[in-house]
Amino acid sequence: MSFYAVIMAGGVGKRFWPQSRKKTPKQLLSIAGEESMLRMTVDRLKQLTETDHILIITNSEQEQGIRQEIPELPENNILIEPEGKNTGPAIGLAAIIIQNRDPDAVMGVFPADHFIDDVKVFSNYMRQGIKIARAMQGLVTFGVIPTRPATGYGYIQYHERTSPDEPIFEVKAFAEKPDYSTAQLFLDSGDFLWNSGMFVWHVDAILNSFKEFLPEIWDSLENIKRAIGQPVWDSVLTVEWATLRSISIDYGVMEKAKNVFVVKVDFVWNDVGSWDAVHEMQEKDESGNVSKGDVLYHDSKNNLVFSEGKTVALVGVENLVVIDTEDALLIIPRGETERVKELVDDFEKEKRDSLL
Amino acid sequence: MSFYAVIMAGGVGKRFWPQSRKKTPKQLLSIAGEESMLRMTVDRLKQLTETDHILIITNSEQEQGIRQEIPELPENNILIEPEGKNTGPAIGLAAIIIQNRDPDAVMGVFPADHFIDDVKVFSNYMRQGIKIARAMQGLVTFGVIPTRPATGYGYIQYHERTSPDEPIFEVKAFAEKPDYSTAQLFLDSGDFLWNSGMFVWHVDAILNSFKEFLPEIWDSLENIKRAIGQPVWDSVLTVEWATLRSISIDYGVMEKAKNVFVVKVDFVWNDVGSWDAVHEMQEKDESGNVSKGDVLYHDSKNNLVFSEGKTVALVGVENLVVIDTEDALLIIPRGETERVKELVDDFEKEKRDSLL
Repeated sequence: MSFYAVIMAGGVGKRFWPQSRKKTPKQLLSIAGEESMLRMTVDRLKQLTETDHILIITNSEQEQGIRQEIPELPENNILIEPEGKNTGPAIGLAAIIIQNRDPDAVMGVFPADHFIDDVKVFSNYMRQGIKIARAMQGLVTFGVIPTRPATGYGYIQYHERTSPDEPIFEVKAFAEKPDYSTAQLFLDSGDFLWNSGMFVWHVDAILNSFKEFLPEIWDSLENIKRAIGQPVWDSVLTVEWATLRSISIDYGVMEKAKNVFVVKVDFVWNDVGSWDAVHEMQEKDESGNVSKGDVLYHDSKNNLVFSEGKTVALVGVENLVVIDTEDALLIIPRGETERVKELVDDFEKEKRDSLL
Repeated sequence: MSFYAVIMAGGVGKRFWPQSRKKTPKQLLSIAGEESMLRMTVDRLKQLTETDHILIITNSEQEQGIRQEIPELPENNILIEPEGKNTGPAIGLAAIIIQNRDPDAVMGVFPADHFIDDVKVFSNYMRQGIKIARAMQGLVTFGVIPTRPATGYGYIQYHERTSPDEPIFEVKAFAEKPDYSTAQLFLDSGDFLWNSGMFVWHVDAILNSFKEFLPEIWDSLENIKRAIGQPVWDSVLTVEWATLRSISIDYGVMEKAKNVFVVKVDFVWNDVGSWDAVHEMQEKDESGNVSKGDVLYHDSKNNLVFSEGKTVALVGVENLVVIDTEDALLIIPRGETERVKELVDDFEKEKRDSLL
């Protein structure tokens, strides 16, 4: 009857270049507060379970940084994917590890790099999700009541209420990131929620879904499971992993499964998808500027300026994002910060490894 | 019959912050080409006279940087003002030093931090100026044919031609920096030239003008002159200097004197007064960007970006000036770079010495 929390921490967060790098990915940055995103995520989950029931799944490049950031986590609770295969295989791997520790566990899946404002409210909703996951052997998602026609989030459409006392609904459909007019329709309809990317389920429920919808991955997971605690673990994991296709849990399982529920949650949630989101979320000065470091404004407003050390002076500048790190400086207008990814994609193509 | 060239190198060039600092003033920066402004000025003057006839007048803060930049100059050819008193006293000091070395010398005065494109054409005009200075015992200025209604320059109005063969005219009036509509009138009139701040005269002619128009400064200069080569030199210079008022040569002498001539010169000249001027003068890429260092442009045009080391990435940014140095970063729109001075004035008021 134990609850395990799995933190998905494999991404780099290219949109946060130049702060985000392979070794300092988005979840290790303090972009949504004083603490890193990962630290805030771990601390939130400690309200739900003991530290040794929290697992982080990541890759070898980020392993060291994560161990330094979360030193209290048992060594075995950091799972290293041999290579990134999207969320599907990663969640499958976590599920067999947890099942091995406790066959009756309920597990939750949590992105390492999202912002949630109220830990207490969050915990209450999660406990409701855990309850329904255990009671109904279903796959439980968490849908955030949308406040604007966001085009950067996926949506969950719900219908029938499951319980008269709790905000839990059956899921009708999942929708990918919509264009603006579709997002407006979703918002107006009243039965669409933002897909928060958080899930709760019994380990049997999710592994049965793998067996049904992703049988070849399930076969690999079975092979990997047999190697747990064995000397062959590393080699089995590496070989099996190499054969797996990349697939997201949403596309591979959630959109196909029937027993899917959504908890309608009412806390401030933000996936902190870009520097624009950071400007939106953080406290502003009287001119609408958000700053970190020694920043001087002269007739300058609504800027986001992060400086790692040096003095930055803006004169007559509006709506600009300025991110200054030790070896790189980014300047981009607010409203266009999604495009940072293009830049990093170019660096990859050009093999400018020192910038990645 | 020798010619001495005096380079005025006492300014900081606040408008070039954060590159310009007390110890790295504008004339030591490479903002108008590969070489520093001072190096280019010295090399230009070597076409007119021997190295040991070139003097630099500066202050103790800049002395070391200047000696490093121009190591070939004899030690005694760098004159140190005890404190800045504007161009009048500085020129007077240079005049007595030169008169002491050669009572029949003609001297020229040259700002350390202006850009001139064609050294050969420059030299020819200067030789004409030297000739007239010697022949007529007059004060010779150099006026640049204006190409636009610049509001950042002083103007010289000329009338009667002095010689049928040479572009030398009597000066009718000096005008301070005009507003735009006045500048347009000046340009249309055809008899106004930009005041280049360069002068040529016999040492007797300029010292006689001091005696006539600035008699109290002339008295001090006489006292200082008697101390040349004496053990009391430093103390006499310091004491006399402390009594002098600050006054520009234009206001103190040129606007009052009668025997003033102007050589109408036809070379590209720019006082490089701001980062805007640097963008104007320097070679641009196909998108109108001027760059120094590792700068990446994504949909960005007409920017000036100087980076001392790090990679700078601009995405979707236009008409911005970005100056990144080791300890400070400036961001300001093109067209507003005059305002950098306000910033530095504030640093002075706030005693942020590390930024000065």
